[in-house]
Amino acid sequence: MRDLLPEEAQQRRALGRRVLDHFALYGYQLVTPPAFEFAEVLERGLGTLDPADVLRFVEPESGEVAALRPDMTPQIARMVASRLTHEPLPMRLCYEGTVVRRRQGRARRHRQIPQAGVELYGIASREGDLEVLELAASVVRAAGLESFVVDLGHAGIARALLDPLPAPLSAELTDALVHKDVTRLEGLLDAGGTTIVPAAVARALVGLGDLAGGGPDDPAAASVFARAEKLLAGTAAEAPLRELAALWQAARARPDGALASSLRVDLGEVRGFAYYTGPIFHVLAPGPGEPIAAGGRYDELLSRFDAPSPAVGFALHLDAVAWAREAAGAFDGPPFRVLCALGHDAPHVAAALRALGIAAAVHGVDADPAGYARSWRFTHVLTAEGGTIRIESAGVLLASAPAGTPAAEIARIVAELPDRSTR
Amino acid sequence: MRDLLPEEAQQRRALGRRVLDHFALYGYQLVTPPAFEFAEVLERGLGTLDPADVLRFVEPESGEVAALRPDMTPQIARMVASRLTHEPLPMRLCYEGTVVRRRQGRARRHRQIPQAGVELYGIASREGDLEVLELAASVVRAAGLESFVVDLGHAGIARALLDPLPAPLSAELTDALVHKDVTRLEGLLDAGGTTIVPAAVARALVGLGDLAGGGPDDPAAASVFARAEKLLAGTAAEAPLRELAALWQAARARPDGALASSLRVDLGEVRGFAYYTGPIFHVLAPGPGEPIAAGGRYDELLSRFDAPSPAVGFALHLDAVAWAREAAGAFDGPPFRVLCALGHDAPHVAAALRALGIAAAVHGVDADPAGYARSWRFTHVLTAEGGTIRIESAGVLLASAPAGTPAAEIARIVAELPDRSTR
Repeated sequence: MRDLLPEEAQQRRALGRRVLDHFALYGYQLVTPPAFEFAEVLERGLGTLDPADVLRFVEPESGEVAALRPDMTPQIARMVASRLTHEPLPMRLCYEGTVVRRRQGRARRHRQIPQAGVELYGIASREGDLEVLELAASVVRAAGLESFVVDLGHAGIARALLDPLPAPLSAELTDALVHKDVTRLEGLLDAGGTTIVPAAVARALVGLGDLAGGGPDDPAAASVFARAEKLLAGTAAEAPLRELAALWQAARARPDGALASSLRVDLGEVRGFAYYTGPIFHVLAPGPGEPIAAGGRYDELLSRFDAPSPAVGFALHLDAVAWAREAAGAFDGPPFRVLCALGHDAPHVAAALRALGIAAAVHGVDADPAGYARSWRFTHVLTAEGGTIRIESAGVLLASAPAGTPAAEIARIVAELPDRSTR
Repeated sequence: MRDLLPEEAQQRRALGRRVLDHFALYGYQLVTPPAFEFAEVLERGLGTLDPADVLRFVEPESGEVAALRPDMTPQIARMVASRLTHEPLPMRLCYEGTVVRRRQGRARRHRQIPQAGVELYGIASREGDLEVLELAASVVRAAGLESFVVDLGHAGIARALLDPLPAPLSAELTDALVHKDVTRLEGLLDAGGTTIVPAAVARALVGLGDLAGGGPDDPAAASVFARAEKLLAGTAAEAPLRELAALWQAARARPDGALASSLRVDLGEVRGFAYYTGPIFHVLAPGPGEPIAAGGRYDELLSRFDAPSPAVGFALHLDAVAWAREAAGAFDGPPFRVLCALGHDAPHVAAALRALGIAAAVHGVDADPAGYARSWRFTHVLTAEGGTIRIESAGVLLASAPAGTPAAEIARIVAELPDRSTR
């Protein structure tokens, strides 16, 4: 549980606005599901959830089990299936909210993760994947990040290899792949022996982790696909590999090149959430040790809610995006805020400033206006001294006016300061 | 649990933005507490909570009991006490979030209530009450409501009468007062008998409900105070009554008259949450059958978190505000959104529109663009027909251009349409 204090809360809110405005620019419309959801809905979307992984509670009156969602996509699917099935496809929806997940590693406490994401329903073709990939890249840029990598994989590759295996072994292998734990992977395969896991499949599972490349500084992706073709030859993973290679080509060929520069391929990418069926991707940027966005195609999710439709989407992890912004030095300037320490005239000047859309508060003349302004991030301070009204920012006199200047005139002077973004 | 579909979600988000922007204009800075909180923190702020009233769960790893907050004010108090005590007073903070409460009445299911509110710490004088009252009235106006009443009472009046009584009786009487249930109130007082409840106190408790008046259409408030003085004479409620009368006078006398026109006094107003100590108010508007805002003074709350400070605040109930806006016919126009059904050129035109800040999506030429636009609230549709590019809104041709017109030029024509708010 974490508090956001003023500066961070304001930056975070500005980031959320920017992201949702960008989604709106691409025609995505906001929907808002409730913050908690019937556990049954979440399990239908996500598969059986480890009880320790989800915070649940019983609604006292109804006896129904609700849970704090670890993911919003199943909620949107439930919403669409129950209330929007009569609307024409494709459907472009976006959302913002907090999910609750257990932290990985030693201190496995739950944490609240703010997210904003999109859902694109009804486009089964590659055009849907491309639209969402491009939107992911452009929203990351709109958030102020220039240096990032879109890591592209395919959920069907590992799945094709694992699905024929016994379920318990398949689950353990999946977990080892998710955590890229090669030692454990090899141990499981040795224990299972070639009686259970065909040699070609075992070789493919171990080799997947090395099949990554491309991205701005590495033109090696072509060789990745060549090696992958050899590794997966004769396995059920050939078909999804071909699909991924075709998407890769199409993405690199997009006219404005916005994707090409950031695209990387990673066949070893295996995702925890069980609903992905097609291409998957995550976005990485310097700073946070986790992806700033993750998404992909999940064509079977909607049918679990009896409203079958192809679906692609992704979510930004806003904490990670904020961290990456900080690492990249992408700060918003502090908001323009004026402290009026003018005695009797202060309320009138504050009202006149607000009428011009400028944030203002009244403050006592004797209550250290400059120190107070520093503490509470007022960028400008108005004081009256010896017959002069002084307009200062960070201790520097920017303008002045004789005492008795009408409030509206003082407000106008402030509004016309050359650099309203302070200092 | 309630879903917000696109139109409502967008209106709601715009309302939240407007409200928080207004708070910022008055110098209030955003803070964001977590969506769930240690039950202990909530109970410290709110008093012992009825287990049936709060949704609780146990964090599996730590064994700590967390709860979905029924109120954000105790969280902000905890945050300030633990992390902001070194900052100079006064402190102006605002917040937006969802609280979870049980519905009153027959179906006592929990519901999620979106709120946005302010906290003003450190001003013990009447100036603090007035600042918050004025902010409440001005933010309601900023939300597009002109017709509303600010109902003013004082938590100390009922409290002064009830505090000397035995706790169980006092609790039952409070509940009857909160629900303005006179029959039950009289029953309790008869049963308790004058041996327990002094006759003057019993008379005062029953009479409080009739002591209301003032507001735009009723200049009777002066008589309310005269009657109240008589009713409460000789009881411990005389002091808070005097305090309320003085605040009333000061509020009516505010120079711009923004408060005077909406102010009403209601001595029968008794609040459920136990932390109020001074003046309390709620704001009523036609439409929703519940207040659109509620607040007051709670000078003892912060000391429960070992950081004593006077405090005033209020929260808007955004669902109720949205309802009142609807009742008042205060709708935002639909956002300007363009559907590009132009075949091969569509992606280029959409990109050019987005570059000008105009929301745009690409759509298939043969996929009923007009019907799709109606369903998904695109205000404008671009189609190409017989060598002409047509720009339509709601079936009306607004402009046209010859086929082959560059994308940037088409975007410019759209951007310069006389009425960008559609039709």
